[in-house]
Amino acid sequence: MNTDQLYAQIKAKGSMLCVGLDTDYSKLPEKIRLECQRGDLALQGRFYSGKARAIISFNKAIIDATAPYCVAYKPNLAFYEAFGSEGLSALEGTVSYIREKYPEQFIIADAKRGDIGNTAKMYAKTFFETMDFDAVTLSPYMGLETVEPFLQYPGKFAIVVALSSNKTAADFQYSRQDGKPLYQTVMEKCMEVSTPDNMMFVVGATKADKLREIRSFCPDNFLLVPGVGAQGGSAEEVIANGSNSKGGLLINSSRAVLYASDGPDYAEAAAKVAAATARLA
Amino acid sequence: MNTDQLYAQIKAKGSMLCVGLDTDYSKLPEKIRLECQRGDLALQGRFYSGKARAIISFNKAIIDATAPYCVAYKPNLAFYEAFGSEGLSALEGTVSYIREKYPEQFIIADAKRGDIGNTAKMYAKTFFETMDFDAVTLSPYMGLETVEPFLQYPGKFAIVVALSSNKTAADFQYSRQDGKPLYQTVMEKCMEVSTPDNMMFVVGATKADKLREIRSFCPDNFLLVPGVGAQGGSAEEVIANGSNSKGGLLINSSRAVLYASDGPDYAEAAAKVAAATARLA
Repeated sequence: MNTDQLYAQIKAKGSMLCVGLDTDYSKLPEKIRLECQRGDLALQGRFYSGKARAIISFNKAIIDATAPYCVAYKPNLAFYEAFGSEGLSALEGTVSYIREKYPEQFIIADAKRGDIGNTAKMYAKTFFETMDFDAVTLSPYMGLETVEPFLQYPGKFAIVVALSSNKTAADFQYSRQDGKPLYQTVMEKCMEVSTPDNMMFVVGATKADKLREIRSFCPDNFLLVPGVGAQGGSAEEVIANGSNSKGGLLINSSRAVLYASDGPDYAEAAAKVAAATARLA
Repeated sequence: MNTDQLYAQIKAKGSMLCVGLDTDYSKLPEKIRLECQRGDLALQGRFYSGKARAIISFNKAIIDATAPYCVAYKPNLAFYEAFGSEGLSALEGTVSYIREKYPEQFIIADAKRGDIGNTAKMYAKTFFETMDFDAVTLSPYMGLETVEPFLQYPGKFAIVVALSSNKTAADFQYSRQDGKPLYQTVMEKCMEVSTPDNMMFVVGATKADKLREIRSFCPDNFLLVPGVGAQGGSAEEVIANGSNSKGGLLINSSRAVLYASDGPDYAEAAAKVAAATARLA
């Protein structure tokens, strides 16, 4: 998917919302967890049992309920890998389901990968060939070599973590050299080897005041903004400070959507939260 | 496994070698790749077919051949994830095989994970509970929160990337604030919240001159040193500059051991390279 297609979807839906699928098996509604004990679930020619069945059933319900109100889904790899190969099969099933039923959705692997070139190439293969993601989040500590293999796939994106939204983001990301914070150096170096058509950045929403500063040296790239909802950021403030002429933002909400209700109405509740989050005025 | 047990193994074997299991299916000897077409391989009560079968057969042969000459194995997650859930099952099988047959070996997940606390907790669960690794490599960009959940498991280790061995390591790791390079700040902050019994660091061997400098402010922690062999570093130089009273080093070699021969003698050839690498004088 290219940036024009992503922007067309944002305009059509009036939304910049990305729903984070940090699906935690232990937090699933009881009704869904009980599905583990039933037999296989058949989905698109593959069979899922046990926890994989429960995770996929939950994701499917959340996706069906929220798809009209969001433009992207972002499964968080840790929550699938925590159940080993069974969890990874639930991830594969989730991605194929979105791809087939909602082909307009942009799908992000929230993986924060970052390794030497030889290994980065294998990760690019993992997410862009073995699985059909549109983008992968990357951690830049090991330098440009960790990013470049992801830029070789037309219509796919590297999303480099520049400024994260967590408590300890400041431990290293603000370290200054030549008057510039590290996150700015990271973004500028990445922009030298990429275009807005294959590179986005993670910029945490709990630093909404930083968005204007970042837009001054990075006007064109899409920014993926976590930290709205459970982490305390305001979507309105993010849109006011971070938008550009192509929308330029994907605003993520995970826990606030997924666990909007722990009762049997969890999907309707998720739809309500999604419909109210990251709307364009 | 604690540091004393690891050191006892180093002394007994006279080796600091860690064999990196970056098993690339496309580089396997033809004889092994043809195993894909056979039926299931039964190993410790689980069945493996297709590429998982070939990857496990290769790893098993390499492990049996090299175990007397090394003290640790380090599967690289990217090479397993590249084959999706099938690849992850090959990883699970490899780890259980080492754990059962060679319980003295230290097993490292080379995963370079690094995410917010909530997600880091799930990665710790993945590698220390779902799979039975002794240690995980971590990327520190998002701060201490990404490391701390891994420190809560007695006898397990976080291995934080401080100074990597790749070409573009200098892009960000040397950035200086208050006269200190970022890799030093990373190590010092990590040492504040950990002990040498739950924290190691990755320090690239292609910078052997840096090892002495690093030992001046980090005398006690084990260092995992990649970059020997295919990446050009010298194990002798690393041992001379980086050892401490507990050995203090795990020297990794991946490709030079795994692909020592692409003929049917690949296991014997791997044993020969392993026996000659990272020996104590």
